[in-house]
Amino acid sequence: MDECAGVCRGVILAIAPEASIIDITHAVTPFQISEGAVLLARAVPYLPKAVHLAVVDPGVGSSRRAIAIETADGSFLVGPDNGLLIPAAQKLGGVAASHLINNPKFMLPEPSATFHGRDIFAPAAAHLALGIRLEQLGPPLRPASLTKLDPPRLVRTGQTLTATVLLADHFGNLELNLGASDLAEIGIGPGDCAEVVIGDRREKARYVETFSSVRQGGFLLFEDSNNATCLAVNSGSAARQMAALPGVTVSIRTLGET
Amino acid sequence: MDECAGVCRGVILAIAPEASIIDITHAVTPFQISEGAVLLARAVPYLPKAVHLAVVDPGVGSSRRAIAIETADGSFLVGPDNGLLIPAAQKLGGVAASHLINNPKFMLPEPSATFHGRDIFAPAAAHLALGIRLEQLGPPLRPASLTKLDPPRLVRTGQTLTATVLLADHFGNLELNLGASDLAEIGIGPGDCAEVVIGDRREKARYVETFSSVRQGGFLLFEDSNNATCLAVNSGSAARQMAALPGVTVSIRTLGET
Amino acid sequence: MDECAGVCRGVILAIAPEASIIDITHAVTPFQISEGAVLLARAVPYLPKAVHLAVVDPGVGSSRRAIAIETADGSFLVGPDNGLLIPAAQKLGGVAASHLINNPKFMLPEPSATFHGRDIFAPAAAHLALGIRLEQLGPPLRPASLTKLDPPRLVRTGQTLTATVLLADHFGNLELNLGASDLAEIGIGPGDCAEVVIGDRREKARYVETFSSVRQGGFLLFEDSNNATCLAVNSGSAARQMAALPGVTVSIRTLGET
Repeated sequence: MDECAGVCRGVILAIAPEASIIDITHAVTPFQISEGAVLLARAVPYLPKAVHLAVVDPGVGSSRRAIAIETADGSFLVGPDNGLLIPAAQKLGGVAASHLINNPKFMLPEPSATFHGRDIFAPAAAHLALGIRLEQLGPPLRPASLTKLDPPRLVRTGQTLTATVLLADHFGNLELNLGASDLAEIGIGPGDCAEVVIGDRREKARYVETFSSVRQGGFLLFEDSNNATCLAVNSGSAARQMAALPGVTVSIRTLGET
Repeated sequence: MDECAGVCRGVILAIAPEASIIDITHAVTPFQISEGAVLLARAVPYLPKAVHLAVVDPGVGSSRRAIAIETADGSFLVGPDNGLLIPAAQKLGGVAASHLINNPKFMLPEPSATFHGRDIFAPAAAHLALGIRLEQLGPPLRPASLTKLDPPRLVRTGQTLTATVLLADHFGNLELNLGASDLAEIGIGPGDCAEVVIGDRREKARYVETFSSVRQGGFLLFEDSNNATCLAVNSGSAARQMAALPGVTVSIRTLGET
Repeated sequence: MDECAGVCRGVILAIAPEASIIDITHAVTPFQISEGAVLLARAVPYLPKAVHLAVVDPGVGSSRRAIAIETADGSFLVGPDNGLLIPAAQKLGGVAASHLINNPKFMLPEPSATFHGRDIFAPAAAHLALGIRLEQLGPPLRPASLTKLDPPRLVRTGQTLTATVLLADHFGNLELNLGASDLAEIGIGPGDCAEVVIGDRREKARYVETFSSVRQGGFLLFEDSNNATCLAVNSGSAARQMAALPGVTVSIRTLGET
């Protein structure tokens, strides 16, 4: 990683020296807005009430707006108007108010075209942490006008589900855009086996509750600690072994109790 | 990295807003409990008196217990009962008391089966930082009942030592489970050369005090800043050049003053 | 990453518990002092007035001195006398005073030969943060005696510039040691195309203001948020696609408005 995250921390502490900063992650795949949105939405329910700053680029230099959101629970979200913040806002009770950030008083002087994190988002977040009101940052935006991401589609064709990898975590567990009821619809219940296909890789995974329910190196489908369904390998990396990145397509069909 | 470490920080600060959090590392090789144990034990002597939270998984979902330890010097260690915490506890004076963590009052509601860091360890650590007593977390455990790791064996066969890589640091230096006296036993003293074999790679390393005692690209054995014996390359990476990971076996024999 | 950065944080907070620590980056390419110097110099103008601690090694064990610098703006820099700190000092107004660090009172006991970050730099930085005077660390050094890095040369041969990659950022954008006036000299103005050659890779890059001025996957030259000229790929990684690391040579010639 380069110095960018550290510089944003510095800009925040120069404005709000008493701020307590928590880093969520700096490992979002470059340009993967939807991956960032999933990670942010997973994290915010567990964080203290805060100003949450997030950036996934590079929509910079294009017409993307800088926005600040106040959520129903009184938290704030600051970042680009490219859909990144919306799932997190929904986890925090929904968008109560949203404003454009265009007041130069709350930016660094002469903001650059390519590093809004440092020049616009970090200062805005720091000033919100100090207690300015959202409307001081710029004019209101109708929540309905904010950019939303199209969630990846889950398609059922006969007894096969075509799902999408939402993200790969530190262990290589692959979070999918489906739940227990979707698996049930194609006949996969607790303890059953599924055939899982990603690209040219084909594996047999058992739908179980814990890693230790399959042998070392065995594939499993399980509900993770965020109640999301994941494809994983016991003591291995599903991401590496299936050569899978966020955004790729996964086919799943039942193999019964084999 | 995913959002998991950030979420743990958030959980801690939501309970103990004044806590000062130091990240030691998030780069332990997945599932390598012994590597995590070595890193933690190397770090704790240099940290302020603290509650030390550590997790290396995935023994989750199995019968592994959640434990909290008070050490003789008044520090705390919180994590899984899989051996991870014990070497650090020994560096801090030994286990003075150990307790099971099973009091739901000091966990997040409805703890998950797979993210004990967030749901059990982080809340317990935060409450200890706030000043609760160890025994409030759960019933006492006999220190002798805690899981210990088997240290990797150091075997001498004639004039050859068979050692184990304990960890690879940021530079690719490989820490080995041996000391100066072990090398002396097979005739390797300061300035001598050794043949070092890992898998199909074979190199000549000189036993010296500093990197600059060998040419750029040359291999060396040296005592690192933790008094551990390491295999290293001057301005290079022994881990990459020997294709070595923690846990692999290293054969060492003397080549004399060649 | 290993535990080294965490240990330095621990040493600082054990001495100066109220210190607020900002991590800039831990991803400098091992042994690349000049890359570290560029990153540090990019960061410091945006950080609060502080004691800045930086290390890029392994010159340790050789005769390199440990130094502390006070800059004209009243900031401090602590680290090795290998050129790493000088560009940052210049951004902070220049070296007002520089001192050797050799007073054992402000080191850890029995400093190691190979981890000066922990044993010398972190304690010195912490004590400076607590308010000791620079001269308490050791005797003064003439600023002119400090080691400087040779900046990489920019060579013009006819209509071709031979530049150097200073660093690769998180997105794979390659910062070059040249500016708009250098490009103008070989006939490359805004909107023009350039042929860019690194090793055996040859690409056509347009000199534009923003990523969105070229198609997805297209190469561009642009002024980044630090007013440095970079080679980049829209939604891609120039570092990966050109197989380029800091220090490699880049040839640039105009293709006109093609």
